[in-house]
Amino acid sequence: MANIQDIARLAGVSTATVSRVLNSKKNVNDTTRKRVLEIMKQLDYVPNANAISLKKGETHLIGIITIAFSPIIVNFVRAFTMIAEKNGFTISLFITNGQPERELIALEMLKRKQLDALVCLIRSNEWNVIESYTHYGPIVTWQRLHSEKLPSVFMDQFQAYWNGLEHLYNKGYRKILSIYPMSVGLNTKERFRAHTKFFKQYGLAETNFPHFEDKISVHEGEEIAEWWMQQQDRPDAIFCANDEVASGITTVLRRSGVSVPGDLGVMGFDNSILAHLLDLTTIHYPIDQQAENAFIILQNQLIKSNCNLHSLEYQLIERSST
Amino acid sequence: MANIQDIARLAGVSTATVSRVLNSKKNVNDTTRKRVLEIMKQLDYVPNANAISLKKGETHLIGIITIAFSPIIVNFVRAFTMIAEKNGFTISLFITNGQPERELIALEMLKRKQLDALVCLIRSNEWNVIESYTHYGPIVTWQRLHSEKLPSVFMDQFQAYWNGLEHLYNKGYRKILSIYPMSVGLNTKERFRAHTKFFKQYGLAETNFPHFEDKISVHEGEEIAEWWMQQQDRPDAIFCANDEVASGITTVLRRSGVSVPGDLGVMGFDNSILAHLLDLTTIHYPIDQQAENAFIILQNQLIKSNCNLHSLEYQLIERSST
Repeated sequence: MANIQDIARLAGVSTATVSRVLNSKKNVNDTTRKRVLEIMKQLDYVPNANAISLKKGETHLIGIITIAFSPIIVNFVRAFTMIAEKNGFTISLFITNGQPERELIALEMLKRKQLDALVCLIRSNEWNVIESYTHYGPIVTWQRLHSEKLPSVFMDQFQAYWNGLEHLYNKGYRKILSIYPMSVGLNTKERFRAHTKFFKQYGLAETNFPHFEDKISVHEGEEIAEWWMQQQDRPDAIFCANDEVASGITTVLRRSGVSVPGDLGVMGFDNSILAHLLDLTTIHYPIDQQAENAFIILQNQLIKSNCNLHSLEYQLIERSST
Repeated sequence: MANIQDIARLAGVSTATVSRVLNSKKNVNDTTRKRVLEIMKQLDYVPNANAISLKKGETHLIGIITIAFSPIIVNFVRAFTMIAEKNGFTISLFITNGQPERELIALEMLKRKQLDALVCLIRSNEWNVIESYTHYGPIVTWQRLHSEKLPSVFMDQFQAYWNGLEHLYNKGYRKILSIYPMSVGLNTKERFRAHTKFFKQYGLAETNFPHFEDKISVHEGEEIAEWWMQQQDRPDAIFCANDEVASGITTVLRRSGVSVPGDLGVMGFDNSILAHLLDLTTIHYPIDQQAENAFIILQNQLIKSNCNLHSLEYQLIERSST
C-alpha cells in the first residue's frame, strides 16, 4: 500500500506538506493541496490512524463504555466530554447493549494503546475481566465496586432519598407514593430500602397503592397523573423516579385544575432543566462533578498528578411543587 | 501470550467451555467458571476482540462520527441506537472535537473491519478523505452533500422556517424577531435567508432589533426574556432557534405576568419534550426518522436489501404560545 513518502515523491512536495494536507492545515496553497489529494485518490491512500497515534506516543483519546443511552448517561457523557476537551482529550463512546464482546472491543483498544484510558459506566463483562485490563491503562467505574485497581465514582442514593422523604414528611404529607426507576438497578433497591425503613421509623401507615417501577419518562408521568385523578384513596405526595416523571405529573394535574402542592405534593430527582422550568422541588444529583471526578482520577494516573476530587453531595432543592 | 487453548488445557475443560465463560453464558457450573476465571487471571489472559469479530465475519458494530455532543446530536444518536439495536447492531460514538486524526481512528476501524459501517454526522476531514473510505464499507452523512458514494439524509430548513414565519404572519404578528442557532451552521444561513426573503416578499418593515445568534439554551432564552421586558420598541413575536430557547423565554415572561401569546408570540423549533410540556407552537423536526433513514441506507448496502426510506417532512405544530 502507498505511504506518505510515495505521495510526497509523486506530488513533488515534502512529506511535511502531505501531512499538512492530511491534517487540513491552512498553510498549503490550493494547487498543491489539489495535486496531493488527487494523488492520494489515485493511489487509494488511507492514512494509518495507529501510525499517527503511536508517533505521538499518546492518543489523548478516552473511551466510555455503557450498555445503553439513557438521559442520565447522556448527562454524564456531556459533562465528561467537556472537562476532557478542556484538557486536550477526546471521547469515544461504546454502547454495548450488554454484549460482552462489544465491551471487549474498547478494552482491546486500551491494550493496543488506541485509547489512553476507559470509563466503565455500566459493564457487560465480569469485573475480573475488566480489572485485568487495568494492566494496560487506567479504568474508572460508575457502578459500586470496592477494588484497588478499579476506582469508582459511585454515589449511594439511600441518604438522598431519605432526605427527600423527610422533606415531604415535614411539609405534612403522610400518604407518600414512591415511583421507582429501573427495576434492575441498585438505585431502585436503595430507594426502596429508604422508603420502607422511613415508613417504619416514622410510624407511617402502609399504603395500598400499586407498586410503580420502571417509570422514567414524561409520558409515564402523564399516565400516573391520569391514574391519580381516578382514585378514591389517593397519595397526598408522589416522590418521582426523576424530573421527567415529576414534570409529566405536574403538567397534567395543573392543567386539570389540581393544585400542586395543595392537593398533591410532587418531588423530582436529578435537578434537571425540567425541574428548573417547571419549578419543581427535587434532589440535585451532582452528575457533572461525578463525571469530572472520573476524569480527574484517570488524569491523575495518566500524568502522575494528584489533583483533588470534588466532594460529591446530593442537595435538596425546594421549589413550588411541595 | 496465553490463548484460549492454554486456558482450556490448564483448567481441564473444552475450549467451548472457556468460550462460554468468556461470553458470560449461563450454562457453565460455578466451580468450573471460577476455575477458568482463576486461570485466566494467573495467565493475565485478555480475549482478543479482533479474533472474535473476524471469526463471526461481521462486527455488527456501526460507528457514528460527530464533532460535539449537542442536544440535537443526542436525539439523533438515541434514535439511531434504537433502530440499530432492533436490527442486531450496536453503536460506537466518536466525538472528534473537530480533529481530523480522531475521525481517522473511526475511518481506520472501518477499513480494518472493526466497524461494519459509519455515520458521519459532522465531519472533520475533507470530503474526499472520507469518500475514499467508502471503498471499505458504507458511510452515510447528515450534512448536505451531493455524492454518489456518500449518501446524505440532509434536510433543508429554508421551507420549514418560511412556514413558521407565515404562521406568525397569519396570526397577526408583524414585528417578528428571529433568534438563530449556531453561527457557523448551514441551518442558520438558511433560516436567515428565509427570514430576509419573507420580510421582503410580505412587505414587512425592517426592525432595529439586535441580531441574536448562537442562542440555543434555556438560560439564553431567559436572558432574552429579560432583554424583551426592558425594551420600549419590542418584537411582537419571537421565532426561536429551538424549543430550549422558547421555553426559557415563555417561562420567565409568564411568571412575570406577560401574556404569551397576547403580548408576545413565541415559536420554537424541533418539537421536543419541552415544547410538549410548555404547550409551545413549534416545528416538528423528524430527527428520529432521519436517523432511521441513515440506518436503512447503511443496512440496504450491508445486506443488499432495498428497504424504503421515510419521506422526511417538517410539520408545524400549533399550540398555545402563538
